[in-house]
Amino acid sequence: MFLLMTPQFDYKTPLEPYLPHSKPSISTSLPFITLTYAQSLDSKISAGKNIRTALSHEETKEMTHYLRLHHAGIMIGCQTAMCDDPGLNCKLDFDKSPRPIIIDPSGKWKFNGKGKMYQFFLKKQGKPPIVVLSSNTFYNDKKFTKQDYVEYCVVEGSPTDNNRLDWNSIFQKLYKDFHLRSIMVEGGGFVINDLLSAHAVNNLINSLIITIAPVYLGNKGVTVSPYNGRIDLKDVKWFTGTRDSVMCSRIG
Amino acid sequence: MFLLMTPQFDYKTPLEPYLPHSKPSISTSLPFITLTYAQSLDSKISAGKNIRTALSHEETKEMTHYLRLHHAGIMIGCQTAMCDDPGLNCKLDFDKSPRPIIIDPSGKWKFNGKGKMYQFFLKKQGKPPIVVLSSNTFYNDKKFTKQDYVEYCVVEGSPTDNNRLDWNSIFQKLYKDFHLRSIMVEGGGFVINDLLSAHAVNNLINSLIITIAPVYLGNKGVTVSPYNGRIDLKDVKWFTGTRDSVMCSRIG
Ligand SMILES: NC(=O)c1ccc[n+]([C@@H]2O[C@H](COP(=O)([O-])OP(=O)(O)OC[C@H]3O[C@@H](n4cnc5c(N)ncnc54)[C@H](OP(=O)(O)O)[C@@H]3O)[C@@H](O)[C@H]2O)c1
Ligand SMILES: NC(=O)c1ccc[n+]([C@@H]2O[C@H](COP(=O)([O-])OP(=O)(O)OC[C@H]3O[C@@H](n4cnc5c(N)ncnc54)[C@H](OP(=O)(O)O)[C@@H]3O)[C@@H](O)[C@H]2O)c1
Repeated sequence: MFLLMTPQFDYKTPLEPYLPHSKPSISTSLPFITLTYAQSLDSKISAGKNIRTALSHEETKEMTHYLRLHHAGIMIGCQTAMCDDPGLNCKLDFDKSPRPIIIDPSGKWKFNGKGKMYQFFLKKQGKPPIVVLSSNTFYNDKKFTKQDYVEYCVVEGSPTDNNRLDWNSIFQKLYKDFHLRSIMVEGGGFVINDLLSAHAVNNLINSLIITIAPVYLGNKGVTVSPYNGRIDLKDVKWFTGTRDSVMCSRIG
Repeated sequence: MFLLMTPQFDYKTPLEPYLPHSKPSISTSLPFITLTYAQSLDSKISAGKNIRTALSHEETKEMTHYLRLHHAGIMIGCQTAMCDDPGLNCKLDFDKSPRPIIIDPSGKWKFNGKGKMYQFFLKKQGKPPIVVLSSNTFYNDKKFTKQDYVEYCVVEGSPTDNNRLDWNSIFQKLYKDFHLRSIMVEGGGFVINDLLSAHAVNNLINSLIITIAPVYLGNKGVTVSPYNGRIDLKDVKWFTGTRDSVMCSRIG
């Protein structure tokens, strides 16, 4: 378990106004969404596909666990689940670990096995996951079988591409059927870019918390940059640790 | 002229250790090089090629003029010179304006005319430029003619591509023939990426000063990201203005 090793890095005070409880979602059908990730100066979240990359300092990693304490769910894309094998629990208080949510339209990711998430679950140090699946996989794919301990959030695939799920529908369903009132979205690149781009239409993201590590990862890295042009941020607050800087904001 | 409008934003104290005078280049053949630019969160320095993009807050713009006060030369690529028409003088003290240096291997950019740099020069509010030209253009291009008031720094083009100039040769020549002891490199994308990538081989950059504006510009923007993988930074210091954050560092 983490020790609170960085008393000089006070992230709690600056984060306070951006946490779900301080400004609950005003929607009665959508959870409070925090988009949060760590990037390099050149806006890479890893050095390349399938390359797990150490980016944030211990103290900003600890901050991530503090954020997990304050969210009911934690969401990642299936690529991140498969490449990085993240634990997604809360090391500051196992019982308050968020529900892992994996967006995995065609059901590729396996929960059972040697993966950290499963091991934490067995040791009661983390919760079992929700897999967000395309309705096509769930109802029509003969090869699909339900995994033990996994719950499925089945969302209709897009008419043109059954593997594309609408963000509004995903979050509505997680709110309605799984009673999740707050979700932090942690990555990876596809999820972040797609959600930022969808936000422009649907106004989905409530808080944005980005850690910037003073390093370049180079142009082979996995990039964060939304598809549809400029996004202005508001209520911006920066604070700085030993090495990384953190930006909190809302989207204008 | 600028008024020092932001007394609450003290950039002078944090910048001090990164200025040329505080740690002169130890090389006796190369100027002190400061790489400095403003980027969005998603590491774009403009919303697209040929789109002049307002990125930094007034106070970080003022900081740029303070940096100009402390450098003998200010360098940009010919694309930036042609698209953005920057003035490149120092508004805090015209007489201390740096020498503009345009990397323009084939001599496309025109100094004379309505451009800001020329107008400042006529009004004695800025210095005349040095154009860094390929030897091939200078000696062999029949269409090339020297422009009034412009000085030429002629550098041998690469054997395989006459329009590619070696960074080490450029800086050595600017030091030896033009006695420039400090140069700030301001952009654009090609120049920054190429110089960062060359640094890995030649150790050319002494200080790195990046302004980060809390905005996404989207994936059509002009990107900063070096070609050859990870670059770690050292002696990192962050400081924050009203809206932007500034990172100062050296390259590890
Ligand atoms: N630095 C950080 O904070 C951080 C955090 C997390 C991850 N990462 C990095 O990010 C990288 C992985 O990113 P990535 O872009 O490859 O993958 P990703 O975003 O983790 O996963 C993408 C996949 O998730 C599914 N998906 C996501 N949104 C969907 C939607 N709206 N509808 C349908 N399916 C959706 C798709 O699965 P299908 O392919 O089955 O259609 C898609 O290919 C890794 O290198 C990891 O290290 C970094
Ligand atoms: N936010 C900021 O701080 C900031 C600052 C400056 C510029 N910008 C933006 O940057 C964009 C322009 O960037 P850009 O990438 O298009 O162009 P650029 O870097 O300004 O200029 C590139 C050109 O300079 C010449 N050049 C540079 N280095 C060279 C070398 N080592 N050897 C030979 N030639 C070299 C080449 O000219 P040839 O094509 O003739 O070979 C090259 O095409 C604009 O949108 C501008 O607004 C932003």
